[in-house]
Amino acid sequence: MAKEKKQEFVQHITPRDENFSQWYTDVVTQTDLMDYTPVRGCMALKPYGNRIWELIHEQLDKMFKDTGHENVSMPMLIPESLLLKEADHVEGFAPEVAWVTQGGTEKLQERLAVRPTSETIFCTMFSKWVQSYRDLPLKYNQWCSVMRWEKTTRPFLRTAEFWWQEGHTVHATAEEAEEETQMMLNVYKTFCEKNLAIPVFAGQKSDKEKFAGARATYSVEAMMQDGKALQAGTSHNFGTNFAVPFEIQYLSKDGKLEYCHETSWGVSTRLIGAIIMTHGDERGLKLPPMIAPFQAVILPIAAHKGGVMEKCGEAFSALKAAGIRVKLDDRDNVSPGWKFNEWELKGVPVRVEIGPKDIENGVATVMRRDTFEKTAIPLDSLAEGVNALLADIQQNMYRIADEFRLAHTKDVHNYEELKAQVDGGYARAMWCGDQKCEDKIKEETAATSRNMPFDQTPIGDTCVCCGRKASKVMYFAKAY
Amino acid sequence: MAKEKKQEFVQHITPRDENFSQWYTDVVTQTDLMDYTPVRGCMALKPYGNRIWELIHEQLDKMFKDTGHENVSMPMLIPESLLLKEADHVEGFAPEVAWVTQGGTEKLQERLAVRPTSETIFCTMFSKWVQSYRDLPLKYNQWCSVMRWEKTTRPFLRTAEFWWQEGHTVHATAEEAEEETQMMLNVYKTFCEKNLAIPVFAGQKSDKEKFAGARATYSVEAMMQDGKALQAGTSHNFGTNFAVPFEIQYLSKDGKLEYCHETSWGVSTRLIGAIIMTHGDERGLKLPPMIAPFQAVILPIAAHKGGVMEKCGEAFSALKAAGIRVKLDDRDNVSPGWKFNEWELKGVPVRVEIGPKDIENGVATVMRRDTFEKTAIPLDSLAEGVNALLADIQQNMYRIADEFRLAHTKDVHNYEELKAQVDGGYARAMWCGDQKCEDKIKEETAATSRNMPFDQTPIGDTCVCCGRKASKVMYFAKAY
Repeated sequence: MAKEKKQEFVQHITPRDENFSQWYTDVVTQTDLMDYTPVRGCMALKPYGNRIWELIHEQLDKMFKDTGHENVSMPMLIPESLLLKEADHVEGFAPEVAWVTQGGTEKLQERLAVRPTSETIFCTMFSKWVQSYRDLPLKYNQWCSVMRWEKTTRPFLRTAEFWWQEGHTVHATAEEAEEETQMMLNVYKTFCEKNLAIPVFAGQKSDKEKFAGARATYSVEAMMQDGKALQAGTSHNFGTNFAVPFEIQYLSKDGKLEYCHETSWGVSTRLIGAIIMTHGDERGLKLPPMIAPFQAVILPIAAHKGGVMEKCGEAFSALKAAGIRVKLDDRDNVSPGWKFNEWELKGVPVRVEIGPKDIENGVATVMRRDTFEKTAIPLDSLAEGVNALLADIQQNMYRIADEFRLAHTKDVHNYEELKAQVDGGYARAMWCGDQKCEDKIKEETAATSRNMPFDQTPIGDTCVCCGRKASKVMYFAKAY
Repeated sequence: MAKEKKQEFVQHITPRDENFSQWYTDVVTQTDLMDYTPVRGCMALKPYGNRIWELIHEQLDKMFKDTGHENVSMPMLIPESLLLKEADHVEGFAPEVAWVTQGGTEKLQERLAVRPTSETIFCTMFSKWVQSYRDLPLKYNQWCSVMRWEKTTRPFLRTAEFWWQEGHTVHATAEEAEEETQMMLNVYKTFCEKNLAIPVFAGQKSDKEKFAGARATYSVEAMMQDGKALQAGTSHNFGTNFAVPFEIQYLSKDGKLEYCHETSWGVSTRLIGAIIMTHGDERGLKLPPMIAPFQAVILPIAAHKGGVMEKCGEAFSALKAAGIRVKLDDRDNVSPGWKFNEWELKGVPVRVEIGPKDIENGVATVMRRDTFEKTAIPLDSLAEGVNALLADIQQNMYRIADEFRLAHTKDVHNYEELKAQVDGGYARAMWCGDQKCEDKIKEETAATSRNMPFDQTPIGDTCVCCGRKASKVMYFAKAY
C-alpha cells in the first residue's frame, strides 16, 4: 500500500517546464498549505500554510519594531463617505469593494466597506491624533486581512480575502516621509533576500502602475521560475494627498498650521506564492529554512529494532534544544519511503534518518532538500551539524535563485529584443516615460512596466517602444 | 505648564466608589488604550492597548501550542446557507449579523455574514478534512476579529467588532471532546490567574446561558471591583450537534461510519476590560507585570546634571538585557512630576528614578505601582532587583484581587439574602435547575446565573428562588 501511494505523489505533480501554472496548482493543493472554501475567491490557510505566514509575521514584525513602528488594530469596516474622500483612491478601489448594507435586522443608512486597504480609516484617526509637531512622527502598522472582490483568483497570488500587514505613518516633512518610504522598501528587500532567499529588483513604479492615491510607489519585484515577475511588496509616499482631504495638520514649532506627509507599505500572503514559485521543483515545495514550519524531520528506519526510537527521541530533544523547528515522524502506518516522499513534497529543508546501521556507526544520515545530497553527521554533534546545514541551504537557495534571475534578465535595445526577452524573463530597457508606450507594450507583449531601478545609468538614449528620446531605465516583464 | 497638566490627570478620573462606570470610562479614554471611531460600535486599538492584546496573544498561543493545537485562518465571510444549518446557532446569532450583500458592482445572489463566530465555516471545512479515525483529532485555533451588531457598546466589554481567538476541535469520541473542553477551560483559568492576576470561578453554564448550539458550556467568571461578574472565557462541548447537520463523519477502526464530536473555546479583547476593572485604582490603570507593555519606566531626575542621562542609559541597557520590557522616558518638555502621573495613570508596574543623589549613593529609587512603596536598589544589581519586584507585584496583585473576590462572595440560603448579596458580589446558592427561577431572579434582582462550580457539595436542599427541592449549586451575580 505504501508503495502505491508513494507513486501517487510523483504522478500528481505536473513538470514545471510542461505547464508551470498546473505545476503551481498541483504543489499548492497537495502540500496542505491551503484549501478552497465555499466563499467565492476566499481560501482557508491550513496549519502548514498558516505557520509559514506566522513565521513571516514574527520575523517581519521584529524588523518593523526595530525600525520604530508600533502595531495598532483598526476597524475592518469603513463607512463609504470616508472611502470617497480621496478621488484617485476611491476610483482605484471602489470596483472591488464588498459592501455591508445590513446590520442585524436594520438596513444601514450608509454602506460600510469591508476594508480593501485602510488608508481612509487610518487618516480619519490620524486627524484626531495629530495636533502638534510633538505628536510626530506616528509610525503604525497592523496585521489583518483585507477583502477585494476579484473576478479571477488563484491561491496566494490573487484571492478575494488575503492576509497582510499595512504600515501607515505620518511625518512633519516631505523629506521624512520619503526617507520612511525608502527605508521600508529596504526592509522588504532585506527580508525577501535574507529570510525568504528571494532576490528582488527594488525600484520606483511608473505613474500608471502606482497605488491609487500615492505620489510615488516603490516596489520589490521577484522573478518566478517561468521568468515572470511577482510584485512582492510595495511602499508608497503619499505626500499630502491624503492629509489635505482628511485635514491631518500639525502646529509647527513656529506655531504655523502645516499639512502632514504620509506613507503606507505592505506585504501579503502573496509572499507564500512567491516562495513556492521561486524555489519549488518537480518534487514539490522547497522551503527556505528561515520560514520552514519544520526545518528538520527525523525519520526512524526499522523503528521496531531495538534502540531506534530511543535514538530518534534523543535526536529530537537535541535539535529542539538547539532552537531547530523539528518534527519526529513516528507514524507506524506508512513506510519510510512514503514519508521520504511526503516530506520532500512539503519542502522540509533537512531529513534526518536514523536506523540500526546509523546507530552502529554513531551517525545520522542527513539529506538536504535543496540538492538531495546525503551526508553522515555524528549523533553527538547532530544539532551543530544540522544548524550549519540549514545556514548553508538558506544561502544556497538564494544563490541559485539569484543566478536564475540574472540569467533571465537582459538589456534590450529595440522592440524585437524586448518582445523576445519578456517571453520568459525581465527586460531592462530605455523608456520615454509616456504611458502610451506602456499601454502598447502591454497590449502587444503582455508585459508591464515593473519598476525603475535606483541606478538609472542609461543603456541607450531612445525609447524601446516609440524610438523617441528616452532617459528612464525601466524593467519590463510579464507579471502575476 | 507642566504643573497645570499634572493636575489635569487627577481631576479627570472619577473615584471608583462614586461612579464605577464613569471611572472605567475615564480610565479607558485617558490611557491611550483605544479610541472611538466613526464606525458604529467599533473601536481602534491604539499602540498601548494593542500591545497588551499582543502579549495576551503571545502567551496564550504558547499555551495552545503546548497543548497540541495548531493555528489556521478561515474566511471572514460566511455564506448565509452555512449559518442556517444548525438551528439553535442561527437563532442565537442571526439578529446580530452584519451582512455583505454587494461585491464590487455585483449584487450577491446569497448574502454573506461577516463572521460573528466561525463554527459553521470550520464545520464545513472539517467535513472535507475528516475521513478516517487516523485524521483525528483536529485541534485548530484562529486569531482574528469578529463582528456582532450590538445595540449598546462599551470599550473592550461589548463592541461590534472585537478581537479574539477561537479554538475549534474535532474528536472521535464524546469522552475526548469533553476532556478537551475541560482542558481548555483550565488553560483559561491558569492564564487568567497566573498571567493576568485575575482569580476566576470555573464551572458550567446553565442551559439558558450556554452557547447557541452547544451541548454544554463552561466558563471562567471574574469579579470586578464593583462586585459584578465578567465572563472572561468560555469552552463549549458541542457533542455531535454540528457534526450531524454538517455531516462530519469518520470511518472508525472497525470500518463503521461515525459522527465526530466537537468543541470550541474563546477569549477576547474583553480580557483587557477585565484587567482594568479588576486591578485599576484612583490613579488609573494597574497592569499585571506579565502583560504590561512596559514593565518598568526609567525617569531621569535633573536630567541636565552631569552623569544622569548616562546612568539612565546604562540602567535601560541592563534591564533590557535582562528581558525586562523597559522604557526610558527622556522627554525634556514635561517635568518629572508630569511623568510620574502619566506612568501611574498608564499602570506601569515599576518606576525607576535616577537623579544626582541616587547616583551619589549608587542606587536607583524604585517605586512599585501596586503599593506605591519606594525602595532603593543598588545600580549594580538593578535588573535582578527589578525582576524580583515584578514577580512580587504579580503575586501581590493576584492576592489582593483574590481577597476582594472572597470577601464579596457569600453563600445565601433564601431570596432576601440573594437579593442583598448580588448588590455588589457573587451569591452561591442552591438552585432547582428550572429556567423560570433564573428568569425571575434576573427580572427582580438583575443578577444572572454565572456558573455551577465543579465542587457541587450542597449548601442546602431547597431552591433559593422557588423553595422546591434543589440539588444544583449555582453562582448568581450581576454581570457585564
